[in-house]
Amino acid sequence: MNAETLSQLAPSHLAYVPFVSVANMMRLVHHIGIERFLTDLAAHIEEDFKRWPEFDKTPRVASHVPGGVIELMPTADDRLYGFKYVNGHPKNTRTGHQTVTAFGVLSEVSTGYPVLLTEMTVLTALRTAATSALVGKYLAPKGAEVMAMIGNGAQCEFQAMAFRALCGINRLRLYDIDPSATLKAKRNLEVQGFEITTCSSAQDAVEGAQVITTCTADKQYATILTDNMVGRGQHINAIGGDCPGKTELHRDILLRADIFVEYPEQTRIEGEIQQLADDHPVTELWQVMRGEAEGRRNEAQLTLFDSVGFATEDFSALRYVRNLVQNTDFAENLDMLADPDDPRDLFGMLQRSAG
Amino acid sequence: MNAETLSQLAPSHLAYVPFVSVANMMRLVHHIGIERFLTDLAAHIEEDFKRWPEFDKTPRVASHVPGGVIELMPTADDRLYGFKYVNGHPKNTRTGHQTVTAFGVLSEVSTGYPVLLTEMTVLTALRTAATSALVGKYLAPKGAEVMAMIGNGAQCEFQAMAFRALCGINRLRLYDIDPSATLKAKRNLEVQGFEITTCSSAQDAVEGAQVITTCTADKQYATILTDNMVGRGQHINAIGGDCPGKTELHRDILLRADIFVEYPEQTRIEGEIQQLADDHPVTELWQVMRGEAEGRRNEAQLTLFDSVGFATEDFSALRYVRNLVQNTDFAENLDMLADPDDPRDLFGMLQRSAG
Repeated sequence: MNAETLSQLAPSHLAYVPFVSVANMMRLVHHIGIERFLTDLAAHIEEDFKRWPEFDKTPRVASHVPGGVIELMPTADDRLYGFKYVNGHPKNTRTGHQTVTAFGVLSEVSTGYPVLLTEMTVLTALRTAATSALVGKYLAPKGAEVMAMIGNGAQCEFQAMAFRALCGINRLRLYDIDPSATLKAKRNLEVQGFEITTCSSAQDAVEGAQVITTCTADKQYATILTDNMVGRGQHINAIGGDCPGKTELHRDILLRADIFVEYPEQTRIEGEIQQLADDHPVTELWQVMRGEAEGRRNEAQLTLFDSVGFATEDFSALRYVRNLVQNTDFAENLDMLADPDDPRDLFGMLQRSAG
Repeated sequence: MNAETLSQLAPSHLAYVPFVSVANMMRLVHHIGIERFLTDLAAHIEEDFKRWPEFDKTPRVASHVPGGVIELMPTADDRLYGFKYVNGHPKNTRTGHQTVTAFGVLSEVSTGYPVLLTEMTVLTALRTAATSALVGKYLAPKGAEVMAMIGNGAQCEFQAMAFRALCGINRLRLYDIDPSATLKAKRNLEVQGFEITTCSSAQDAVEGAQVITTCTADKQYATILTDNMVGRGQHINAIGGDCPGKTELHRDILLRADIFVEYPEQTRIEGEIQQLADDHPVTELWQVMRGEAEGRRNEAQLTLFDSVGFATEDFSALRYVRNLVQNTDFAENLDMLADPDDPRDLFGMLQRSAG
């Protein structure tokens, strides 16, 4: 076989898709620095929220399977298309698996060709936290210093890092029904310089907190917070209520809070507000970020971010990572797309590969 | 760093997803033999059609973008979940890109973890052809020997190989508006031992053919076949009409044919029958394969397979490939899933990776 024949058989550059592995994603985060990564990621998320009408939006496609859910979350603007695959299996930890794993793809709209494949388990944890803290910038009471964190699982520390990077919160009150989860979070966060108080109950945790983050993983209606536990003027960052039949807050809290959501069509199916009437008023975050709707109006107001995670946030994360890894060794090339010399000659390429 | 620390940092087996590249897919096809691959693949597709009610089915999620479409096609049974990413950009060939590229993922329902990532550009060409020929087994007139092929692009030769492997058809009449496409197909198929006639028009091509395959790629309403060109007793295998606004057959043909479809909810949106009333009677293929509906009844009947491609066919293909590549070197392991020792300690894993 001569060199010319070999070069005809080798995949062309069009056949390759840059792939960011878990190891490379972690290396990338450390290379940038985790707080700067979260801040820059939040800036990308904010930028995309501000151009909300440019996106092709659809509620995610959820396949509810025994034990969990598998979701595809696509969105696109006029140049790029992105989607994320993500599962949610609350009982996975019993067998040593992650509750949530994810990967994502970014493609060029003009050709439909993928231009990035990346792990998104780590990236989703970062983008979820960056989104929460970004929303916190708009809704948390001025001068907030203390955050209660109820649920100290895989998302907990990422939330803490993002709230410090974006909102300056350094004091945390941790509670989980499983004390070993709280110890794990305490250990990880003390190293990062946080001032930690471990608490004996959710009631205990919210004491003196201006921001309350709820982030539990049970796939069922649960009541992590009841109305008597929440005062006035706080901001609730509700992460865990994110699929049908799974909520964390008592309905009475929702009835007196001003509720902010990513995409009402999806949040009404999956968020805390699935407990409310379909026409219960909510404010869309993109309008707040564009200055077209009010965020926090006064110190007495109870605000609630009913977070479920939306496809544009993943799109922002994919866009950010693509910009970071292009032409670096943080991505490796995968031979994922067939690319015959003559695009119509796929069969000929297959035949020639036998030689 | 000692060996124990290193082994803690290396991804566990749970972090890896087997990946089949384009090069390995082609190697696999040759290893099995293309006709046997098509026959075995068709057997998997038939097996899954026969257990149709077991699948969670939904029309694909299509993002119509300027110049084409990007689709996600998910389906699941109670053990496995699969989806395919596929684009369709008819003008791509002008810039040396494929009209269609695809990749797919198979996951375990019980954990949501992906267990296979594979190229599907080559695999989709094979499964589309295997499905057509499988349907041909049920609907083509007895003793069919000649197939007209109108549209000689990337799918053409795969269709020919499958119809020979499954239906014994060895004589082909080729026509394409672009003569160079016909020459390309002729060259590739003569090597495979087919008896080829190149034709000067679609009218010419259908002369004496018992099976007519239409497979053109324009994203618009086109009339490749008019009613006067089609006689009685033929089987039409209509591949190209597969998205809204894209059809190949004149409506009058549809009105006198018995029409067979994969999944009516999707075909009414995307197939030839988008030209007909929403309640125009069609027969579902899974019912024919289970013996619950009639296929071809007599020699005079005009049958039409209005192919659009359905998610279960990709599921069958993913299932087949997974069985073939498990524990072989046709798949390489990708570090795609984060897998901390303690599933709740994703942040700890990230922190430790900095060391």
